[in-house]
Amino acid sequence: MYLFSQNIYTPNGFQEGYLKIEEGKILGILDEVMPTENIVDYGEHVIIPGFIDIHLHGWATGSFCFEGDQQSLKKMSKGLVKEGVTSYLATSDVAAIHEIKSQLAEGKKFIDKWNAEQGAEVLGFHLEGPFISKEYKGMLKEEYCKDPSIDLLDEFIEIAGDNYIKLMTLAPELPGAKELIKHANSKDIQISVGHSAAEFEDIKALKDYGLGGFTHTFSGMRGFHHRRLGVAGAAMYFDDMYAEFAKQTGQTVKPEAFELMYKIKGKEKIILSTDCVGLARVKEPFYHYIRKCKFIPDGDNIKLVYDDNKEEILSKDDYEKVKDLELSYIKSVRNVVKNVNATISDIIKMACENPAKYIGVDDKKGSIEIGKDADLLVIDEDWNIIDTFVRGVLQET
Amino acid sequence: MYLFSQNIYTPNGFQEGYLKIEEGKILGILDEVMPTENIVDYGEHVIIPGFIDIHLHGWATGSFCFEGDQQSLKKMSKGLVKEGVTSYLATSDVAAIHEIKSQLAEGKKFIDKWNAEQGAEVLGFHLEGPFISKEYKGMLKEEYCKDPSIDLLDEFIEIAGDNYIKLMTLAPELPGAKELIKHANSKDIQISVGHSAAEFEDIKALKDYGLGGFTHTFSGMRGFHHRRLGVAGAAMYFDDMYAEFAKQTGQTVKPEAFELMYKIKGKEKIILSTDCVGLARVKEPFYHYIRKCKFIPDGDNIKLVYDDNKEEILSKDDYEKVKDLELSYIKSVRNVVKNVNATISDIIKMACENPAKYIGVDDKKGSIEIGKDADLLVIDEDWNIIDTFVRGVLQET
Repeated sequence: MYLFSQNIYTPNGFQEGYLKIEEGKILGILDEVMPTENIVDYGEHVIIPGFIDIHLHGWATGSFCFEGDQQSLKKMSKGLVKEGVTSYLATSDVAAIHEIKSQLAEGKKFIDKWNAEQGAEVLGFHLEGPFISKEYKGMLKEEYCKDPSIDLLDEFIEIAGDNYIKLMTLAPELPGAKELIKHANSKDIQISVGHSAAEFEDIKALKDYGLGGFTHTFSGMRGFHHRRLGVAGAAMYFDDMYAEFAKQTGQTVKPEAFELMYKIKGKEKIILSTDCVGLARVKEPFYHYIRKCKFIPDGDNIKLVYDDNKEEILSKDDYEKVKDLELSYIKSVRNVVKNVNATISDIIKMACENPAKYIGVDDKKGSIEIGKDADLLVIDEDWNIIDTFVRGVLQET
Repeated sequence: MYLFSQNIYTPNGFQEGYLKIEEGKILGILDEVMPTENIVDYGEHVIIPGFIDIHLHGWATGSFCFEGDQQSLKKMSKGLVKEGVTSYLATSDVAAIHEIKSQLAEGKKFIDKWNAEQGAEVLGFHLEGPFISKEYKGMLKEEYCKDPSIDLLDEFIEIAGDNYIKLMTLAPELPGAKELIKHANSKDIQISVGHSAAEFEDIKALKDYGLGGFTHTFSGMRGFHHRRLGVAGAAMYFDDMYAEFAKQTGQTVKPEAFELMYKIKGKEKIILSTDCVGLARVKEPFYHYIRKCKFIPDGDNIKLVYDDNKEEILSKDDYEKVKDLELSYIKSVRNVVKNVNATISDIIKMACENPAKYIGVDDKKGSIEIGKDADLLVIDEDWNIIDTFVRGVLQET
């Protein structure tokens, strides 16, 4: 199959040509092909790599963190391709250990059976905790916050399968963190500092053992003060560490705070994610303090009760309705484009190349290059998604 | 007179030559002069412009803010040249209105009679307040914090003389600030935001009326939070505003916090100052919460009582003793050199060119250029001061 476009974005810039795809792989960009070939002509539309979301608990009609079954991942994968995400890390929450284990076991089964007809690819897992700070737990549950344990991590790895846990969010000030970081590093698990009360000096002392970046930067971490720089100060200070930013709604992080970090670190060290949870799938009533709304499960429906007593009832399985409960990846990208005047190249760094590099899948994901997976988006100049391909398979969008 | 050096720092870089000085002015750099001329040969030593301290209340044996008389400025000027400062703004404190007025009147008399034999030149005044925030008053006195008043500013201008007030520190969130900023702007008075509880949005709304920068950045201002960026966030965010940093002791602002700002704003928008007060000259017992020490005046002496009950007694007029009560300009410069690996060129930006531009005296100060005042330092490679010239007059150092 060939996809023609005047604007195919490669690491060497835009190219015009015929993108050759076979067996889910990118084989090259050709200047000419025989008209008898299978060609899709996208004209001026731009072909870019698909987005990689390294921090995603749930999306729209499915929630890995709330439901934790294969069905939830199936629904997420189907929905995500509509929003530009072609691969992601199924992200666990701080929960009871047996729940995390069950999620990993179910997740592994889904991954092992997955094929590209099913939508976005699960690249593995991101463990958001359980080794995080009670003080900076945010909306997570205190009773499940644990001190670092190599044994427990090994149990998780055993269940998830070798090399399936790609990323872990950790509070490095907790006792035993240093040993855990070293151990995780030896297992090729990337570590992000997050939900952390760490001091700047803790991070300085531990970063070279394997702290690669920061989870939802600025949120859930000790803030910046000029005599106590905290985790936020470390995120601003250390040039070689990545700052993951969850969806840019402007609610949790003001656009100017994002812009400031963009100025400090540049596109090279920022990773865009969503941290969506699949709010429609909560299992018990859940109050969201930023949105000032209570989410109450009610059979096949989800009931929303706002602080001002306004109510709304949505069907849990109605994708078009529930998708607007959280900002999607593509909508977050549009906000970033607007807020920092980002170019296509800037976005691809932050949404494709950096996350791929960060979790060690850049040998097959994150850019349009020969031999890599044909995970592609066709977009127009306003960042509307025309088509999505996962491993060369056209998705239903 | 000619000063020869292999390393004369000009805005075009280093030059070797004979720096020609006549009647206090720089007349050029010559390749050759007649050996019969009056030549001082500095060899490899570097000639740079003198430092300009725009935020200085007192130094060593004199204090403009505590004593407020001509004698205090005389002593300050004599001492400052030993520390590399060739000109400064006599900086008032938040004090009773009649005290500020008296200080301005005395200061004006000193300026009008001053000649270069007397040491560092007073370029005018910096009013640190009285229009500042009670919430962020720091070590200043709450009862003297006032709401902005154009009438009062006009009274100050009347006393100080036209164009003598060069800079004012203001809390722009106070009622009437906008009108005051406009008025000050029309009088060529630069405004720094400081001792301020302002929101980021206040500064955004008012900056184009004439807010040029920030006083002792990070200290005495609303801090940074990612949903409430505050004054510190504005200082980091607005590229066109200057950040003044008081002496870099590492106590009030951690070296890494300075380094972060240096990374964000670059040398182009940072101004080094000292904010020294002349601690030996306090008029009443004064507790310094950063130094954890009480300064108690005792006739001709000053008694220091530390939190751990250690005591020390110094003669108020013993320059060599009292100068070490505060970090001098040159010592602060050495810390900056060490902390951010600053070059001579970087320091000259922050200590000479930027402050001159900021307070509008760059037509005669801040760089070695034809027609400018011969305010010069001769330094060695370790930032030791060999000689200081004020308007071409060699100072006693």
